[in-house]
Amino acid sequence: MKTAQEIADYVGGTLHGDGGVEIRSVGSLERATTGALAYAEATYLSQVARTHASCILIPEGEVPQRTVIVVDNPRVAFARAAQLLVSPTMPSPGIHETAVVAPNATIGTDVSLGAWTVVEAGAIIGDGTTIFPGGYIGASCRIGTQCVLYPKVVLYPDTTIGDRVIMHAGVVIGADGFGFVFDGKRHVKIPQVGNVRIESDAEIGANSCIDRGAFDETVIEDGVKIDNLCQIAHNVQIGTHAIISSQTGVAGSSTIGREAVIGGQVGIADACHIDDHAMVGAQCGVPSRKRIPAGEIYWGTPARPLKNIKIQQAHVSRLPKIAEEVKRLRIELDALKAKLE
Amino acid sequence: MKTAQEIADYVGGTLHGDGGVEIRSVGSLERATTGALAYAEATYLSQVARTHASCILIPEGEVPQRTVIVVDNPRVAFARAAQLLVSPTMPSPGIHETAVVAPNATIGTDVSLGAWTVVEAGAIIGDGTTIFPGGYIGASCRIGTQCVLYPKVVLYPDTTIGDRVIMHAGVVIGADGFGFVFDGKRHVKIPQVGNVRIESDAEIGANSCIDRGAFDETVIEDGVKIDNLCQIAHNVQIGTHAIISSQTGVAGSSTIGREAVIGGQVGIADACHIDDHAMVGAQCGVPSRKRIPAGEIYWGTPARPLKNIKIQQAHVSRLPKIAEEVKRLRIELDALKAKLE
Amino acid sequence: MKTAQEIADYVGGTLHGDGGVEIRSVGSLERATTGALAYAEATYLSQVARTHASCILIPEGEVPQRTVIVVDNPRVAFARAAQLLVSPTMPSPGIHETAVVAPNATIGTDVSLGAWTVVEAGAIIGDGTTIFPGGYIGASCRIGTQCVLYPKVVLYPDTTIGDRVIMHAGVVIGADGFGFVFDGKRHVKIPQVGNVRIESDAEIGANSCIDRGAFDETVIEDGVKIDNLCQIAHNVQIGTHAIISSQTGVAGSSTIGREAVIGGQVGIADACHIDDHAMVGAQCGVPSRKRIPAGEIYWGTPARPLKNIKIQQAHVSRLPKIAEEVKRLRIELDALKAKLE
Repeated sequence: MKTAQEIADYVGGTLHGDGGVEIRSVGSLERATTGALAYAEATYLSQVARTHASCILIPEGEVPQRTVIVVDNPRVAFARAAQLLVSPTMPSPGIHETAVVAPNATIGTDVSLGAWTVVEAGAIIGDGTTIFPGGYIGASCRIGTQCVLYPKVVLYPDTTIGDRVIMHAGVVIGADGFGFVFDGKRHVKIPQVGNVRIESDAEIGANSCIDRGAFDETVIEDGVKIDNLCQIAHNVQIGTHAIISSQTGVAGSSTIGREAVIGGQVGIADACHIDDHAMVGAQCGVPSRKRIPAGEIYWGTPARPLKNIKIQQAHVSRLPKIAEEVKRLRIELDALKAKLE
Repeated sequence: MKTAQEIADYVGGTLHGDGGVEIRSVGSLERATTGALAYAEATYLSQVARTHASCILIPEGEVPQRTVIVVDNPRVAFARAAQLLVSPTMPSPGIHETAVVAPNATIGTDVSLGAWTVVEAGAIIGDGTTIFPGGYIGASCRIGTQCVLYPKVVLYPDTTIGDRVIMHAGVVIGADGFGFVFDGKRHVKIPQVGNVRIESDAEIGANSCIDRGAFDETVIEDGVKIDNLCQIAHNVQIGTHAIISSQTGVAGSSTIGREAVIGGQVGIADACHIDDHAMVGAQCGVPSRKRIPAGEIYWGTPARPLKNIKIQQAHVSRLPKIAEEVKRLRIELDALKAKLE
Repeated sequence: MKTAQEIADYVGGTLHGDGGVEIRSVGSLERATTGALAYAEATYLSQVARTHASCILIPEGEVPQRTVIVVDNPRVAFARAAQLLVSPTMPSPGIHETAVVAPNATIGTDVSLGAWTVVEAGAIIGDGTTIFPGGYIGASCRIGTQCVLYPKVVLYPDTTIGDRVIMHAGVVIGADGFGFVFDGKRHVKIPQVGNVRIESDAEIGANSCIDRGAFDETVIEDGVKIDNLCQIAHNVQIGTHAIISSQTGVAGSSTIGREAVIGGQVGIADACHIDDHAMVGAQCGVPSRKRIPAGEIYWGTPARPLKNIKIQQAHVSRLPKIAEEVKRLRIELDALKAKLE
């Protein structure tokens, strides 16, 4: 529990109304109940009068007759305040009696290892990290501090994880890349001897897979957020604070720049380069070796600049009219020719 | 084992032939062997003569010289009879000695908890429910009666499940929704404090993911069937008896109406509304905030009514001919102009 | 460790330079370090001079002044040599004390069963097979020799696996196919009583799902390679040495021929036939009951021969010009008509 004034201080906003009001939870404007903090962006200010929330974060401007906190960016302030108010309950530190930990693994202080976790030889787990039941930490993995691995995360050997990384249930890091060469009779497996390095503050969604490099590293940089059921292939590099939405696949050796935003169900073929701050729309298909320039928005399959795609779609939808006009031109031209003969 | 007569009685059909014939299994017309029940729809009646099945469910009409059961809908009758004949073997009730059950969890009668299952504090598991090895039931989850959770299903805290729900291996329910806000430097996580509610008779396919609501519930209503590797985002609502085929993704806050049918690999962006009985074709991409009206069939990316898409595709495939004709028009018109000058 | 000469002998190549040089690892031309083997295909021979690799596999032709091995196909030779040099470390044989093995299961010699593995009644596990922690082997499963099942693989009952099969973490084999029939009120489940058979030398990627047949078998033949997060539905048959790339889905009863190559995120609807050696491009959508002839390359949604798609795309991108020309024709024709009146 915090008071409205404490929240205002925490997010650096200006309180109007009753600073002593008690805030216990968070909610949306429409559904928040007494004791909850909500937020309103400019276009939703009309809803502030009707919400049951006890305190609302609002942008600069007119101040309603309620307990509100005026901030620069209500959504950012809300996210921060919410972290203060409602962080998820974590298991207590301690190693469950059923955990199987190799003698030469290194377990930091305040680590929680849940039931049926396995920590293989040479692995290092940093202070304050929580591994839920059923986690598998392969040999020589290194996990930083304050990470949370939800149930049944699998790290293959030699995976490196930074600090404060969150991995949801069923994530698989470091499986073999899909590397074969056909010898005329069968596919010969190319041993995948690289590894995966995930930097700090990354979050990986449930059942997503990040394959180990063929020889080198697959790299997920600081603050990257990957949604559920994504596939990141061998040797991919994803830059700082990039966003990868659900069910997207990135094929071998492609790179994604910092703060790039990739929509859902996108397919990025091998050896592509999505430059910094580029945006790739949902279901887009980026063909092999394509570069998407910094800051550009691409869409469609094969991927093209969004504005080109929109022009093309407009032309295609006018096609029936063009076909009609071509028919009329033919008739009129034939009539003219007949007349002249 | 049942006799043909017992099956006829069970499905409410009319037996012709030998009612005492023994039926032990089910099969397709082509491959069924002695002792099996098969079914034939109108167009496949010619195959009835050749099948090795011992009894065949057939529709009203001509009755062949075999042991058959005449029913209104052979496929429905077959599904019901098959459930009678060949329900999968379930583990015996009982709590495996390796299960880790919190002292204040509530376990109903005839519950089976397999090896290495974890049931956290305050969870409630209803009578007759089976949880296969490696299941993880988070704190305060409530599971109804007669459910089957195949190996390694993970329920995050506060998940609510109705009765007779089936979840296949690797399903993850209640992971955090993909909610972040960029503060200019980094993505700030918006704590996901809602939960997931799944009503009765739902079935969820292997390795599918259903995220918890941001503040409220993600809801899967009665009888919804979700195939493998699907992604259901935070705050989605899926109506009664809807069908979601494999590898489909539904983004945040979208709703899907009752008895809607969504094909495979469909992407539904955020805040869409697929109304009751609508159908969305495979690989369709439904853009943000789009509504698909009740009963309509949509296809393509961006999603449009199927008939429009077909007309457009026809025009596109006639494009080469239109281009030719435009060229000819130019030549003829130029010739005409030259002649007139 | 091997000497360059030993590697040359193993791959059947001709050594030039110092046959005694010691090789301990593998790498790419760009990043290999001392002690590593690399390979160069014709177009990259210029890089051979600059690599730090201690030995390079090269094709016939000019021989540089370095330790090299001349072979027919450097990439194939490299894959073979890499297998010799760097095969992944496997757990020692033995049954972990926490494994739960049914009394009538049959465990071969030199089998490794990791912590928290479950082997149900009647299952048979062949010699030299490794099952990592958390594996679940259902009743009556048969697994051949020298297989590797990475952590948390789930085999439903009656699954049959050949020899030397590799399954990555989170794979689910044999879950129920998505089979329901709507009785006007609800979906009635059609019991899925078939099974899955996977032949020798197959490899299945992380979190992929292969459903059991409805009545018969789902079959994955010898040497098939399936990438991560793929969905293979009930009764599918995939022919010898076919390749299925990541996130692809194959719907019920479709067949894929031998050595066919399916790109990433492809959707193959039900009852399709992809014939031998056919190639299906990434994100392609193959509609129900479609046949793709042997050796053909298809792309797009709906799938068509690649050359047709390319012609069509070219026409579509010329559309703005066609529209312009039609406009000009109209103006000129109208002018001509005015003049003639």
